[in-house]
Amino acid sequence: MTKKKIQKEKKEFTVDFLPFKIRVEVPSGTSLLDAVKKAELPLKTTCGGKGTCGDCVVQIISGAYQSKQSAALSDKLASQGFRLACQTKVTDNITTQLPQFRELAIKSIVDSKFFEEQKDRISGLYEIDPAVKRIELHLPPPTLEDNYSDLKRIERELQKKLSLKRINCEYSVMKKLAQAVRKDKGRISVILFISGNEATIIDAVPQSLGKKLFGIACDIGTTTVALHLVNLSNGKIESTVSSLNQQITGGEDIISRINYAQKPGGLKKLHELIILTVNNLIGMALRLAQIAPSDIYYASLSGNTTMFHLLLNLEPRYIREEPYVPTFNEIPTILSRDLGLKMNHEGRINCAPAVGSYVGGDITAGLLCTPFLRDSKKISLFIDAGTNGELVVGNKDWLVTCACSAGPAFEGSGIKCGMPASEGAIEEIKMLDSGKLEYKVVGGTKPKGICGSGLVDLLAELFIHGYVDRHGKYKEKKAAKKIVEVEEGKGFLVEEGKNSFWGKDLVITENDISNLIRTKGAVFSACSLLLKNVGLSFDRIDSFYIAGGFGQHLNVENAIRIGLLPDLERDRYHYLGNSSLLGAYLILLSAKNKALAEEIAQKMTYIELNTEPNYMNEFTGALFLPHTDIKLFPSVKTVFRR
Amino acid sequence: MTKKKIQKEKKEFTVDFLPFKIRVEVPSGTSLLDAVKKAELPLKTTCGGKGTCGDCVVQIISGAYQSKQSAALSDKLASQGFRLACQTKVTDNITTQLPQFRELAIKSIVDSKFFEEQKDRISGLYEIDPAVKRIELHLPPPTLEDNYSDLKRIERELQKKLSLKRINCEYSVMKKLAQAVRKDKGRISVILFISGNEATIIDAVPQSLGKKLFGIACDIGTTTVALHLVNLSNGKIESTVSSLNQQITGGEDIISRINYAQKPGGLKKLHELIILTVNNLIGMALRLAQIAPSDIYYASLSGNTTMFHLLLNLEPRYIREEPYVPTFNEIPTILSRDLGLKMNHEGRINCAPAVGSYVGGDITAGLLCTPFLRDSKKISLFIDAGTNGELVVGNKDWLVTCACSAGPAFEGSGIKCGMPASEGAIEEIKMLDSGKLEYKVVGGTKPKGICGSGLVDLLAELFIHGYVDRHGKYKEKKAAKKIVEVEEGKGFLVEEGKNSFWGKDLVITENDISNLIRTKGAVFSACSLLLKNVGLSFDRIDSFYIAGGFGQHLNVENAIRIGLLPDLERDRYHYLGNSSLLGAYLILLSAKNKALAEEIAQKMTYIELNTEPNYMNEFTGALFLPHTDIKLFPSVKTVFRR
Repeated sequence: MTKKKIQKEKKEFTVDFLPFKIRVEVPSGTSLLDAVKKAELPLKTTCGGKGTCGDCVVQIISGAYQSKQSAALSDKLASQGFRLACQTKVTDNITTQLPQFRELAIKSIVDSKFFEEQKDRISGLYEIDPAVKRIELHLPPPTLEDNYSDLKRIERELQKKLSLKRINCEYSVMKKLAQAVRKDKGRISVILFISGNEATIIDAVPQSLGKKLFGIACDIGTTTVALHLVNLSNGKIESTVSSLNQQITGGEDIISRINYAQKPGGLKKLHELIILTVNNLIGMALRLAQIAPSDIYYASLSGNTTMFHLLLNLEPRYIREEPYVPTFNEIPTILSRDLGLKMNHEGRINCAPAVGSYVGGDITAGLLCTPFLRDSKKISLFIDAGTNGELVVGNKDWLVTCACSAGPAFEGSGIKCGMPASEGAIEEIKMLDSGKLEYKVVGGTKPKGICGSGLVDLLAELFIHGYVDRHGKYKEKKAAKKIVEVEEGKGFLVEEGKNSFWGKDLVITENDISNLIRTKGAVFSACSLLLKNVGLSFDRIDSFYIAGGFGQHLNVENAIRIGLLPDLERDRYHYLGNSSLLGAYLILLSAKNKALAEEIAQKMTYIELNTEPNYMNEFTGALFLPHTDIKLFPSVKTVFRR
Repeated sequence: MTKKKIQKEKKEFTVDFLPFKIRVEVPSGTSLLDAVKKAELPLKTTCGGKGTCGDCVVQIISGAYQSKQSAALSDKLASQGFRLACQTKVTDNITTQLPQFRELAIKSIVDSKFFEEQKDRISGLYEIDPAVKRIELHLPPPTLEDNYSDLKRIERELQKKLSLKRINCEYSVMKKLAQAVRKDKGRISVILFISGNEATIIDAVPQSLGKKLFGIACDIGTTTVALHLVNLSNGKIESTVSSLNQQITGGEDIISRINYAQKPGGLKKLHELIILTVNNLIGMALRLAQIAPSDIYYASLSGNTTMFHLLLNLEPRYIREEPYVPTFNEIPTILSRDLGLKMNHEGRINCAPAVGSYVGGDITAGLLCTPFLRDSKKISLFIDAGTNGELVVGNKDWLVTCACSAGPAFEGSGIKCGMPASEGAIEEIKMLDSGKLEYKVVGGTKPKGICGSGLVDLLAELFIHGYVDRHGKYKEKKAAKKIVEVEEGKGFLVEEGKNSFWGKDLVITENDISNLIRTKGAVFSACSLLLKNVGLSFDRIDSFYIAGGFGQHLNVENAIRIGLLPDLERDRYHYLGNSSLLGAYLILLSAKNKALAEEIAQKMTYIELNTEPNYMNEFTGALFLPHTDIKLFPSVKTVFRR
């Protein structure tokens, strides 16, 4: 091989990733999967690059490449420019798009209708007075008669604006203070972290070097992580991003993750995966808003107790061992440099306070978004039916809470065609009397799968129209035409492959239905037990708040029909959406909200369902459609055709 | 070369360093200087290993070696086993001793007479209530009814013992808390850093893993650094060590160091050198007491403002530029992990508060050791005549302070035969009427040089006995017999080479005398100006406190004869010794003393001598022996033979 030829082969090409302005350069012949890795973009691959799993599908928009055919990719998709990244070599400047980026909900919820709807509910809490503040100072020039130290001069000016008992200063700031003070002749911006009547100077910059101050609010869900990048000067949400929690490889629910953490190196791995997930999201949010990591000085996180333990690299083992003692409920302020989050080195991290091992900071943050804490008379019930279900009942004067292990079925996991509520997900399903299904797909594309709300609709329609019995089994006769045999057994055909996005049949199996019933049964029985514990019947609940992304699209009628929710007047139900994220945002915006969240956490009394003598009875009763005791669901009884 | 031969050459030998249990292993043929470096022991070398400076002298106690002869080492020393480390190769297991370790004052001043003398003066301040505390807790076992988090359980027990408004927890502690709490079934020791009514948990260990809690008090002098290792449970000083400040290579006085810091990389270098100096001392103190670095949780440092800036890697430039504004006077608590001190990662570092650029934390700490702050009537004067001279006058109600640049002559620098007051230093000199000199040597060895107090004695005797005139010049006639010609000009022979330790003549040159006179003139004129500023004459001073190692051995009579100190009744003079170190120790022991030091710093009014119109007049007047105005020194006049 001549030297010239070697040089030619080593030619570098650019790979651009849409919709971002992300570009990497790679030598000719590099696999597109390696280019994706170089760009530090998340792209799932199950087979490890062998071209068999079909997970690493990318769409090539422009540029030349060499690609091997693969059975894992349909001809139709191939004709639309989709390729398996692992089987594709870069031989030109390429522009490409990773499909799951279209599934990441990159949108500004400030402008969305949903956020407007929330505004009334949280209006009293929407004030901008964060614990991290930027203060602009103009220090008078020192003289021989007034030659106090730089810090003293800053303190003196600060005290004119704020009334503080003590002002600390981070060591990293000390080192740059002399230059920072003099650069703009005393015109300096200091960034303060304020706690009570004490402040710590966490940065000091000459005013000419910009005046940015950003924060992030992040909901760390077991399945999904969602994040707002927020301008702390005006509360504006600059960008919102979400993705799967990459810990998913270590198990889908909390218990699997805790078990995984027990393995050698397991805790470290899970810790690194969640830091990676959050940092990827921050990176993406920053790119969208054209902001530097060093401009982020504050993070408000919400999440359940296990997620917080894994995030902080804390042993989660005792969370699942009786008597279920976590290391922390109220986590002291963490420094970003200790955790390695992609933000200013001296940034502060606040974790929403938890009640206990199974009622975490996500619930406390979520309750911030409900008005029922401001009412002493009416009784409300709050439910967050994510992978782990949490419930709170009470009012301004008292709060009782419990948890149940619902499983990830409503998040689309453990269900053959399940998926999160992102682009291509069937989110609503209606069955006509003819048995034909009508559905609505997120983003209006061809369907890729079915998300939680779609699954509830589907199960309710199958049940109400007599395709499945009260045990969740297919009625052979009725369903015969629609039943297909798949690897997992009998399945109801929701959509044929020719009409679906990935060209595969969309099917719901009996096993899927069984999973859904277990999940809804766990939630309903927890609800029921919680109320029995406080001596209330369902009809005493004035407002029923449904939190979580799942709840946002839920058809209450159908949820009642399958026995997920109690048979109350429909107008008592209210959707909160991702109240954990909204709560984290409220805590980010205002130190007062942070204190309120702490008060809420203090006020909640936790009851342990596992040790309730009636637990198994209640649960088994709820493993029917809608329930063994049909009298509990009078409105379902009337539409139920036996 | 055969493989066997290579292996033979690579044979490893041990090198032991007395008086410590320090051993390193090095390959055969390694230079002893490299072995010293491997042992991380400080050994000065000026020529960089060429064998010409003679600085790296070591004494070989046992073992075989190969060594080149060098003109820089006398035959006599060679016959006693001294060798130049750079010219010596290790060819056997060797036991050796570095001479300067004998010069490091390794002693426990708890047992010394001097400390006993101080005890009366500081008795009111000697209480053991440090800001860093170890608290032993026994947490009751958790149950389902009482399953608060680990932190909450610790807080609950802590609140029974201490009344705290808030308890924080370091992130590193969070990570080990779950295991620490369970290891000894709830028996746990927590280390708290307490500030006001807030505490931070900086460590948590099962009680079976030991209960040690140590601190260090360290005086960071421009020339000398001295350190106590202290048991914080009972205040006992476990070991005391001192050494030259290794920054000495960057200049002898503060101004030279500040200039050096302006060079590219200069600040970083000086920062690293002082950290190295302190860490070497900590290492030595720890070895002497058989204690691990992680057992040191608290450090109380005293030092002047420039030393603190260099220690903390802060730009010192504005200290010497009008209007002399330092970055800090009161330095917030520093974390040892930020600074890299050889102590527990989460240890806390307190720097004694300064008044300004030229009156630093060493003076505030020093004043802690004087009783005059507890008296509203009597007026006292405090003087610390180190490389930089600082003075304070006042009483309980008012304090006025100033600084003068005295130069390092009294520390033995800039004087041909000058040396610190360590082993081999002539510390007292008396001249008989015959002209014969009698002297006393620290450690009783042959003299190696003359320290500050010896130099004052020598100058006074030469002056009183008529060997030098009032300008500090040798009177040819009188001194002829004793005058020798040296490189630097005329020199008075103090001791012949045959009687000195290193075999060289001990000589004081006219240049040396000129340096000494400038130094004493700077101190006296500062004293005089300070008093004029507050409208007091010398005879109004009831107590005159002399701080610093130099002051400890000073003969007041001789100091007055050369015009260093004013001509007051001799019993008004009191020696404080290293009051900066003692003050740092008092601050280490008690949070109350820390607050008192802050109060002292607040109370002092600083006056700038450089801008005083009379400054030059006063200074020039003091450049005579004892002064141009002999009336100021009536008692000298009577003994002065013209």
